[in-house]
Amino acid sequence: MRRATITLTTDFGLSDHYVGTMKGVILGIHPLATIVDISHEIRPFDLIEGAFTIAQAYRYFPKKTVHVVVVDPGVGTERRAILVEAAGQYFIAPDNGVLTMIYEAGEHTVRAITNREYFLKDVSQTFHGRDVFAPSAAHLARGAAPASFGEAIHDYIQLGLMKPQRMARRAWMGAVIKVDRFGNLITNLRAEDFPDLGKRPLEISVGLQRISAFARTFGECAKGELFAYVGSSGYLEVAINQGSAAKTLGCGTGAPVELTFFGRAEEQG
Amino acid sequence: MRRATITLTTDFGLSDHYVGTMKGVILGIHPLATIVDISHEIRPFDLIEGAFTIAQAYRYFPKKTVHVVVVDPGVGTERRAILVEAAGQYFIAPDNGVLTMIYEAGEHTVRAITNREYFLKDVSQTFHGRDVFAPSAAHLARGAAPASFGEAIHDYIQLGLMKPQRMARRAWMGAVIKVDRFGNLITNLRAEDFPDLGKRPLEISVGLQRISAFARTFGECAKGELFAYVGSSGYLEVAINQGSAAKTLGCGTGAPVELTFFGRAEEQG
Amino acid sequence: MRRATITLTTDFGLSDHYVGTMKGVILGIHPLATIVDISHEIRPFDLIEGAFTIAQAYRYFPKKTVHVVVVDPGVGTERRAILVEAAGQYFIAPDNGVLTMIYEAGEHTVRAITNREYFLKDVSQTFHGRDVFAPSAAHLARGAAPASFGEAIHDYIQLGLMKPQRMARRAWMGAVIKVDRFGNLITNLRAEDFPDLGKRPLEISVGLQRISAFARTFGECAKGELFAYVGSSGYLEVAINQGSAAKTLGCGTGAPVELTFFGRAEEQG
Repeated sequence: MRRATITLTTDFGLSDHYVGTMKGVILGIHPLATIVDISHEIRPFDLIEGAFTIAQAYRYFPKKTVHVVVVDPGVGTERRAILVEAAGQYFIAPDNGVLTMIYEAGEHTVRAITNREYFLKDVSQTFHGRDVFAPSAAHLARGAAPASFGEAIHDYIQLGLMKPQRMARRAWMGAVIKVDRFGNLITNLRAEDFPDLGKRPLEISVGLQRISAFARTFGECAKGELFAYVGSSGYLEVAINQGSAAKTLGCGTGAPVELTFFGRAEEQG
Repeated sequence: MRRATITLTTDFGLSDHYVGTMKGVILGIHPLATIVDISHEIRPFDLIEGAFTIAQAYRYFPKKTVHVVVVDPGVGTERRAILVEAAGQYFIAPDNGVLTMIYEAGEHTVRAITNREYFLKDVSQTFHGRDVFAPSAAHLARGAAPASFGEAIHDYIQLGLMKPQRMARRAWMGAVIKVDRFGNLITNLRAEDFPDLGKRPLEISVGLQRISAFARTFGECAKGELFAYVGSSGYLEVAINQGSAAKTLGCGTGAPVELTFFGRAEEQG
Repeated sequence: MRRATITLTTDFGLSDHYVGTMKGVILGIHPLATIVDISHEIRPFDLIEGAFTIAQAYRYFPKKTVHVVVVDPGVGTERRAILVEAAGQYFIAPDNGVLTMIYEAGEHTVRAITNREYFLKDVSQTFHGRDVFAPSAAHLARGAAPASFGEAIHDYIQLGLMKPQRMARRAWMGAVIKVDRFGNLITNLRAEDFPDLGKRPLEISVGLQRISAFARTFGECAKGELFAYVGSSGYLEVAINQGSAAKTLGCGTGAPVELTFFGRAEEQG
């Protein structure tokens, strides 16, 4: 039996027994598993927030880590359970698009999990986290071969909402995909796609406000100032130093974000 | 020293240092313990929610797991600390009824923990989670014999509120014992006690609403529809597909639930 | 590689991927680390609450434990990262005073962490928890020598607000430094500094209320009664048995607390 890390990302919250019960199932099958919570506070049924959260975290985990992602509005329907191999790691989730950002990150193999030997004996209609996903992850972490879970598939579901649209030569329309604990607005505008960032003046419209301050770090801004920056996520974020941009701008996940560049590029450094 | 899992179920919340401190105490005594949180968001002093939560989770853990349950309105009074053996597992808690559903599940032995060698040297008046329950659990998980903790007792406390009442031949009065994160109402009506479920038409009164839809799974119902089903808990639950039944019905823990069956049984399958 | 415990205390909350990502970084460097959460619900940027929380928890952990404390309003500025040795344990944090109560507890050595070999390769401007503090802690827990992190310093920052002022012979002015989950108000008045506690009549003014009841335990008070007691923290606390003193008194962290003793000392016991 090999040591292995299993991570959990769900919308189950921490008030109920659900997460603890999943861990009991895992330890029953694989007592040496190291279990790490990514987040259980994904907004109920919010596939985009789930997709963003696991995409931010997974690359910092060791090879062979098994990531379980359960945001599952379709539990009890015919939607499939899947096992994905990507970036030397494993992902187990319902086939509803919650792994879209993993697919976008590079090569991947997707399998439909059909081998019921890896499930609990009685599979309920409403709690596949306990009955399907947790035991499958534990068997995989113990060393079961991915191919033994089921056949590779190609018609797995991908979310279509995650990419910004180009509106004009220097204007893009994106969206807030996550509000973090500090009220920072994380957009779907990926810094590496905008080489003008930090070189040309910009304007970001979000909520009813226009923001033209761009900073490298919170420390460059006055307390209370609204500004844009490249977050630790690699995405463009909007924040207020020691305040909540979400509250000040009155907007949250899904809010449209318009990015426009102006004038001439300035050399930096 | 044997490997062992220790679970924690408390009403301490996660904002304070209380839970982390209990884990420090455990690891000081038993560095190889695997510690799992079931929930720390039990409503303060809510013995019924505590009883329900541990009863839902424990059966999914390996044999010999030590479950610590601290919902303890009487801390600092004469109420006893107890160690319960049941179903091949261990439970450590205050003697206030929070283990009632464990007693109801089958054979069990209850001991009063009187051996102060298993406590921290200084026992405070207000934080027995740290000073009494955590160190006792760690010593037990390390291999201390249950009998060394204290004498078996028979006058331990049981909660009387957990069973529904029969009101008529086909009518029962129960209660909501838990509202979960999704706003699903979990009742104390145990599915296995109602063989008519899914075979006869039923009506459930809760809040000001009467519900007659019964489904096997969320997927059978339209988004927004109110329905009853047998939850992963084994109890009758009331939910709205992708919505909060608790909010829509305006009711929570303790709300009365009336279940009535009508007409003739239909064969299924 | 030695087994070791690493604790985490942050204001990152549990909704985002931040804490999970830090754990991934730690396990990538030190797969055998046991990671324990103290709290991630420190109020954003509240250094005093952070200082209090780690000071309450650390003494219950085994020798050599590495405590990571990230409450970091100055991330991305020139503020230093530090490694503190005290009480046979280690503390890694930004140099902003969040370890003040560790310094006050006894002998300590403080080093500025300047060895970038212990950081991730790319250090972001906004997430030093992931890029600086977590990897430093993992290397230390694996066995790296404290001296290899950087030079000892003496001009580290200490918070000045944490001590009560004497106003008259028998009167002190302190403050609430923490409201816990139950609404108990924890003050900065340390019991061992007031030998009159429990021997002379006292009056505590907090919010608009004057409290003269002093108890050893919650059980001595009627449900709903407001009283003072020495908490498990070792500090004077104000509570309502099975209620929230914070709500009843309408006050929270930072609220002034006046303590006055009256009359003659009575012998106890």
